[in-house]
Amino acid sequence: MARTLTGVGVSPGVGHGPVLRLHRSVPEPPEGHQHSGDADAESRRALRALEETARDLDDRGERAGGHAREVLTAQALMARDPTLGDDVRRRVGEGASAARAVSEAMAVYRGMLATAGEYMAARVADLDDVRDRAVARLLGVTVPGVPESTNPFVLVANDLAPADTALLDPDMVLGFVTREGGPTSHTAILARALGLPAVVACPGAETIPDGASLLVDGATGEVVRDPRPPAVARVRARTRERDSVAAETTGPGRTADGHPVPLLANIGGPDDLPSALRNGAEGVGLYRTELLFLDRADSPSHDEQVAAYRAVLEAFPGGTVTVRTLDAGADKPLEFLSRPQGAEPNPALGLRGLRMLRHAPGTLAAQLRALAEAARGTEAELGVMAPMVTDVADTEWFVAAAAEAGVSHAGVMLEVPAAALRARHLAEAAEFFSIGTNDLTQYACAADREISALGAFQDPWQPGVLDLVATAARAATATGRPCGVCGEAAGDPMLSCVLVGLGVTSLSMGAFALPLVRAALARTTHDQCREAAAAALDARDARAAKHAARERLPGIASLGL
Amino acid sequence: MARTLTGVGVSPGVGHGPVLRLHRSVPEPPEGHQHSGDADAESRRALRALEETARDLDDRGERAGGHAREVLTAQALMARDPTLGDDVRRRVGEGASAARAVSEAMAVYRGMLATAGEYMAARVADLDDVRDRAVARLLGVTVPGVPESTNPFVLVANDLAPADTALLDPDMVLGFVTREGGPTSHTAILARALGLPAVVACPGAETIPDGASLLVDGATGEVVRDPRPPAVARVRARTRERDSVAAETTGPGRTADGHPVPLLANIGGPDDLPSALRNGAEGVGLYRTELLFLDRADSPSHDEQVAAYRAVLEAFPGGTVTVRTLDAGADKPLEFLSRPQGAEPNPALGLRGLRMLRHAPGTLAAQLRALAEAARGTEAELGVMAPMVTDVADTEWFVAAAAEAGVSHAGVMLEVPAAALRARHLAEAAEFFSIGTNDLTQYACAADREISALGAFQDPWQPGVLDLVATAARAATATGRPCGVCGEAAGDPMLSCVLVGLGVTSLSMGAFALPLVRAALARTTHDQCREAAAAALDARDARAAKHAARERLPGIASLGL
Repeated sequence: MARTLTGVGVSPGVGHGPVLRLHRSVPEPPEGHQHSGDADAESRRALRALEETARDLDDRGERAGGHAREVLTAQALMARDPTLGDDVRRRVGEGASAARAVSEAMAVYRGMLATAGEYMAARVADLDDVRDRAVARLLGVTVPGVPESTNPFVLVANDLAPADTALLDPDMVLGFVTREGGPTSHTAILARALGLPAVVACPGAETIPDGASLLVDGATGEVVRDPRPPAVARVRARTRERDSVAAETTGPGRTADGHPVPLLANIGGPDDLPSALRNGAEGVGLYRTELLFLDRADSPSHDEQVAAYRAVLEAFPGGTVTVRTLDAGADKPLEFLSRPQGAEPNPALGLRGLRMLRHAPGTLAAQLRALAEAARGTEAELGVMAPMVTDVADTEWFVAAAAEAGVSHAGVMLEVPAAALRARHLAEAAEFFSIGTNDLTQYACAADREISALGAFQDPWQPGVLDLVATAARAATATGRPCGVCGEAAGDPMLSCVLVGLGVTSLSMGAFALPLVRAALARTTHDQCREAAAAALDARDARAAKHAARERLPGIASLGL
Repeated sequence: MARTLTGVGVSPGVGHGPVLRLHRSVPEPPEGHQHSGDADAESRRALRALEETARDLDDRGERAGGHAREVLTAQALMARDPTLGDDVRRRVGEGASAARAVSEAMAVYRGMLATAGEYMAARVADLDDVRDRAVARLLGVTVPGVPESTNPFVLVANDLAPADTALLDPDMVLGFVTREGGPTSHTAILARALGLPAVVACPGAETIPDGASLLVDGATGEVVRDPRPPAVARVRARTRERDSVAAETTGPGRTADGHPVPLLANIGGPDDLPSALRNGAEGVGLYRTELLFLDRADSPSHDEQVAAYRAVLEAFPGGTVTVRTLDAGADKPLEFLSRPQGAEPNPALGLRGLRMLRHAPGTLAAQLRALAEAARGTEAELGVMAPMVTDVADTEWFVAAAAEAGVSHAGVMLEVPAAALRARHLAEAAEFFSIGTNDLTQYACAADREISALGAFQDPWQPGVLDLVATAARAATATGRPCGVCGEAAGDPMLSCVLVGLGVTSLSMGAFALPLVRAALARTTHDQCREAAAAALDARDARAAKHAARERLPGIASLGL
């Protein structure tokens, strides 16, 4: 009997095949677990397991290359941390077994990481993975990871860590399904990078046994267990249709009746340009500049910054490139920016984004000067925008700083509900808006993006979030300011039509999402967008909003979405 | 020359007199600070200092009594913690001086506290105070605290800890001014309990020298250094006028033209009833029930709960008593409720309030049953409301749980922006609303209530927050639902008029604030309230909103506010 589970589709496409489960559960060595008496031998055993774990991670990193290598090398460093080693030795000295000592020492380390703000807290999963690997070695149980397989499979897991996926052969994977995770989880990012279908936040995924036959639709979020052949054929046909339509729709973004909606790419640096260009991005709607600044003792030099910015500007002659100035702060601590005294109890509500830059005006001025110089002589239109703007004073301060550095086109991100509600006043200073739907949803629903138990509240279809977008877009229209969206919402084909209907003027997304959004807009009139938006605004919850929009967007249905 | 500083007035009244500064700064023993060689003697010295600190705190607690005793006893327990003692001994064994060892060991403890969620993180200031006291003893410097004085004084500090104020003689204190802190800080709460003027979040307070003459207006937030006699006389006259008007306005809350606005008290338990009754509360708008549940291994018994609830209900025959069900969660961890796995990176955006209760339906059902029984036979109207409601599904779930337990009058708090925006849909299930302006402001401006550097964003005068109140009140009016406010905003005389103008139907506040709010409403017509509300909504920032409202509220000016 077919049985359907529903999660959140985060990477479109369809996959069908046997399930391979990632088995991660390594038993926790019980409290008070003692060694047999030879503390020195036991300490050596513990340290050897940590070193072997580190080597294995290094080795996987070498083979995987790229970003995965960085993550795995960082994990290896955790395993080799001398303070951790000392702590393990001390605990073994007091009688704990090697496995118990590693487990306890890691727990202390874990607590420290979890305190160090959102950015470091996200590394907790990586640390847990190191612990599981070392403890598994010491207990003689299987080291967690993807089992070997000679046949293509659908990978099912509670959640995926970088070490789980670093050595995955993409040709063997048909799709991903995880119980936890969200649109910004490692699984989602990886799946989109590989162009594989993925469904995350899927309750019931834990009940799917190894070997079951599974059909995954990464566009709709549907996961069907033991599907009948006609169902598989139907989904495949839908996907083929979708792909061919997406492929045949080219050129600038526009609705069926010709209303232009520039389709832009979100990028993290020049490395993301090939994919943006391949997918027909008309420019960059969000250039996240943190990568340039992370993991270094001081700010990147003027020349280094100019080179990174110019590479992106030169890729879009005649297009726009909107750069978000450094989004530093408690959630992404930067070594060279002084942190506020004392740990912030809620870093997402703390001194982040522009709030931090107002304490480090020199860093902002240097970045803006580098941007002004990078734009000189290129044919792209440079825009700069500030993250985490709250009110008019923030806006005026930022626009003045940009002007002083020689950048005239300055706008703000709308991520804070009060800023979206007051866009009409912010428009007196800002030249444009860009709505960051991820953070806007997090604050509007007071639901942390990192907590999967709150998944239902992290949905940009929540009508309260649509209200904020509508208010901001209305204010932008009334004041003649462009208002884009650069959160995950922009890459959802159906929601992108609703956003346009609400008055949003451009959409910026991960490049992988551009073809389907382009196709969705091309099959929908501007009036249909408006009708879908009105219906979604009138709905009482996220599910009803989605349903109401779908009914008014026949072009989306024709895409099989 | 007079010089004026402006902070946030959190307790009305005027004080004038010489400054006494709280000197807290205890030098940090430098890294690598070693003892002279006798580790045993040095360890004893360290542990003696901790024990003396604990005894001093116990002693102060005994003398202070009440809530201060609980806080000080908890601090003494920190100083006597055996794990802390072991850690200090170990560090001294490795060569650290006693002062350095205490300082380092406390830093570890501090990190652990800071991870344990907002509620524990707020205890970090208490811990720092313990550290400063112990280190001061070891370094032979003055133990921090309020210096002895034989003349009345205005106490100026960076921030105040319970131990600083436990032994204050209220007759010697003319007022408080602190650089840090907010409306919910210890300073604010203490000042209101003592009926003394206080201004917090006052930049520049650190520059006021000992002995300077200072005038503090706790209603306007103005702090004048070296004021001329006429200025003092003017402020005093204003305050006298204010007090006498407040005293002569009695009876139920109503505007000058007779529009009724029930004035209710926020309470934490039966202990708060005398002050509520003395100040003429017409009922209870927010009964916080956490105190009953805190610091215990299991839920309070049925009978214990019934007794606590009935005591409050019986105090208001014919009035309404609105009880907020347990606001448990990551920010106020309760021992007997299981916590979610892993530390939450942002507890304020986590599983708190109703979100936690949905994981502990038995605890909620037991509380609701006790409330239903407590109300039986009393003449007050019982209402129950859920904290941290986000959407329609939350609302329906809570109202059904209340009905099942026999409580028919069930509403929801509006603290989450999305809930306020969607009040029209929540009204399909909820019988009433109560806007919690403290959390609503925190989320609308994405600014943690605990971080004083973000003070400007924690202001309910932020027009974006007023927008949310207006939207909620409009939805309540359209659906015939009452809509109260129970945050700090309700106790601000000027803002209370604006709230009424926005459509709010009742105001609940700390009992101390009732007389002035009653007087403010009695001197203002309903139309003036509406005009002030419209003007505030139209303002571009918090300062302009306040200014615009003041211009339209002559009754407030006549109160000297």
